[in-house]
Amino acid sequence: MINYNLGALLSKVRSEKPLVHNITNYVVMNFTANTLLAMGASPVMAHARGEVEEMVSLAKALVINIGTLSEAWIESMFLAGRRANQLGVPVVLDPVGSGATTLRTSTFKRLTREIQSDIVRGNASEILSIASATVTTKGVDAVHDVEHASDTARQMARQLDCVVAITGPVDLITDGNRVIRCKNGDAMLRKITGTGCAATATIGAFAGVTKDALEATSAGLAFFGLAGEVAAARAKSPGSFMTALLDAMYEITPEQFQELARLEEG
Amino acid sequence: MINYNLGALLSKVRSEKPLVHNITNYVVMNFTANTLLAMGASPVMAHARGEVEEMVSLAKALVINIGTLSEAWIESMFLAGRRANQLGVPVVLDPVGSGATTLRTSTFKRLTREIQSDIVRGNASEILSIASATVTTKGVDAVHDVEHASDTARQMARQLDCVVAITGPVDLITDGNRVIRCKNGDAMLRKITGTGCAATATIGAFAGVTKDALEATSAGLAFFGLAGEVAAARAKSPGSFMTALLDAMYEITPEQFQELARLEEG
Amino acid sequence: MINYNLGALLSKVRSEKPLVHNITNYVVMNFTANTLLAMGASPVMAHARGEVEEMVSLAKALVINIGTLSEAWIESMFLAGRRANQLGVPVVLDPVGSGATTLRTSTFKRLTREIQSDIVRGNASEILSIASATVTTKGVDAVHDVEHASDTARQMARQLDCVVAITGPVDLITDGNRVIRCKNGDAMLRKITGTGCAATATIGAFAGVTKDALEATSAGLAFFGLAGEVAAARAKSPGSFMTALLDAMYEITPEQFQELARLEEG
Repeated sequence: MINYNLGALLSKVRSEKPLVHNITNYVVMNFTANTLLAMGASPVMAHARGEVEEMVSLAKALVINIGTLSEAWIESMFLAGRRANQLGVPVVLDPVGSGATTLRTSTFKRLTREIQSDIVRGNASEILSIASATVTTKGVDAVHDVEHASDTARQMARQLDCVVAITGPVDLITDGNRVIRCKNGDAMLRKITGTGCAATATIGAFAGVTKDALEATSAGLAFFGLAGEVAAARAKSPGSFMTALLDAMYEITPEQFQELARLEEG
Repeated sequence: MINYNLGALLSKVRSEKPLVHNITNYVVMNFTANTLLAMGASPVMAHARGEVEEMVSLAKALVINIGTLSEAWIESMFLAGRRANQLGVPVVLDPVGSGATTLRTSTFKRLTREIQSDIVRGNASEILSIASATVTTKGVDAVHDVEHASDTARQMARQLDCVVAITGPVDLITDGNRVIRCKNGDAMLRKITGTGCAATATIGAFAGVTKDALEATSAGLAFFGLAGEVAAARAKSPGSFMTALLDAMYEITPEQFQELARLEEG
Repeated sequence: MINYNLGALLSKVRSEKPLVHNITNYVVMNFTANTLLAMGASPVMAHARGEVEEMVSLAKALVINIGTLSEAWIESMFLAGRRANQLGVPVVLDPVGSGATTLRTSTFKRLTREIQSDIVRGNASEILSIASATVTTKGVDAVHDVEHASDTARQMARQLDCVVAITGPVDLITDGNRVIRCKNGDAMLRKITGTGCAATATIGAFAGVTKDALEATSAGLAFFGLAGEVAAARAKSPGSFMTALLDAMYEITPEQFQELARLEEG
């Protein structure tokens, strides 16, 4: 049994409205911003070299997502990440598509070397892409089972000195010692684009109100997964599901979150 | 009492379908284009240095939005803005996040110096950011009350020789002499991203059918706010609200607009 | 009567989930990705010079869309296109707004010269823009009737050695010899942004499961048009129509597709 006070954490997001600075991909920017707004946080998207260091200094969390890379954006990711590290702003990293191309894999590797992330979230393929040279991914889709990734995740968390989350049918969250499994979620989440990215941003919102990275990651994945469950109960097709998902992010109360989160240790 | 024929203006947008050229931010491009289409205008998004001058020459209005800046885009904003000025194409400027970073504030300032905007729309923080060195914003959120900004807005409108609109619970619109307040709107508009940007684009659509910038701004904010009211009556959560908002932009008739607009002078 | 087994083709998309690599415009990225996911394909968006050649080598189809051009993206389109040609990955080209600006028209022309597309889809203005120096477009809207474009399309298809599709109230599809007309569709599709782009991506999904470009194009336009019909029966305004369209892409069964596609030869 996990003794996080998840209801209180959600209330804190809604009262403090933490500013979450996202350097994320073009495909999901709108949906990510709407996800953060719906749950009660304040999103800002900014990527210019000339402003990311200043923007991140206003933020409570920085989310770096490599989904649509280019040289200029990579430079901005490092500028913002280094400044976040200097200021103690938590960094949440989403290595979208790492393993699919050398550019993504090497950028993910370099980010782990030069920036101290607090949390890294990806699917098994993405996370495993820097653990082994033999792993490849099919575009941005996961091809590995979350269970097989458990040991690797713990090793990576120790090596990178951060929380690692591998999401899948069951999400695995570890700081290298403790392992938490999150069973919230619904298969419909894979039928719309950007749900992984939005889950990462949701973690960012919680990281903006608690210094405990394991707690923030667990809360973020449980909350996002629960919203998926609520949405799937209302909508059976992806267009209406996307609408219902944003509605659920807004409607879920702290009490419901506390009651319906399915986090288990071990 | 304002004697604008708002119904006729909306009919004109729907019959003339003015082409609105947007150089806007990544987060809101899709929603902005859909907003313009839903109300009856023709959107085009183009930002390349190699084509913005040609594209703006086809347009009835140019909307410049600094929400996700980069060096190349800033250059395009100036190229398009100068050409619009030469051709007499109305320019509508949205200084998203000005005050949050030096890049945004200085770009806004430089745009007001080198481009003659017809209309500038922002929240109080954004507008005040170039009126005073002591004002800062929290990301893209407003932190100032619209009422306190009234005098500054009139001064700015005179100084910049354009219509200035400060949006908030009540919108304030001024050409430096007349002051119009728009009471249309709903708090739900702040729960989805890009509604400020979409309001600016809506003004752009009206600026494409009337040369009276005060009228275009009043019509744009009243129409967008009214669509927010109609949507809020149908949808209580942000996902469905976003859908209902686009529906309302399409469904509101000229007669309804004329009757339900809440514009007051003074 | 066309003897394509459309139901089987749709089943193939859903079982093989072809990876479709899109280099497309900012406005429609989210909607395009969701369209591909809803129908059962796997989208990936990647545009960096440093990764497009590697990404396209993983893909079953490459979709190039010139809707928001810039120099760097043009270079990536050529890199990806050349690699696709070398590997035999089908290339589907969408010349958004060609004819509106010199940059777009010249990029479209150059793409047809240097890359062997398998399929080119646009509205009449866009397609005709490289057939005649006297044709201009109004932004991204079509100004020519599809019927008048029939002869030109056949000539272009022969000249470019690819399938050319001109979409409008009735879609015209030709490989230079056969001409197929697709009557699926609904006027509501013009009330939301990116439906032309999404139709092109849908063609890309089918091109990922059949080598017959005429069949892939016919299937793509019939399927997308049918989804528009299903959506229009449910939703009368653009916000809800967009939601219903994604739902329909997901819900239409192979049997329904086979029965309700309206393709005619000649």
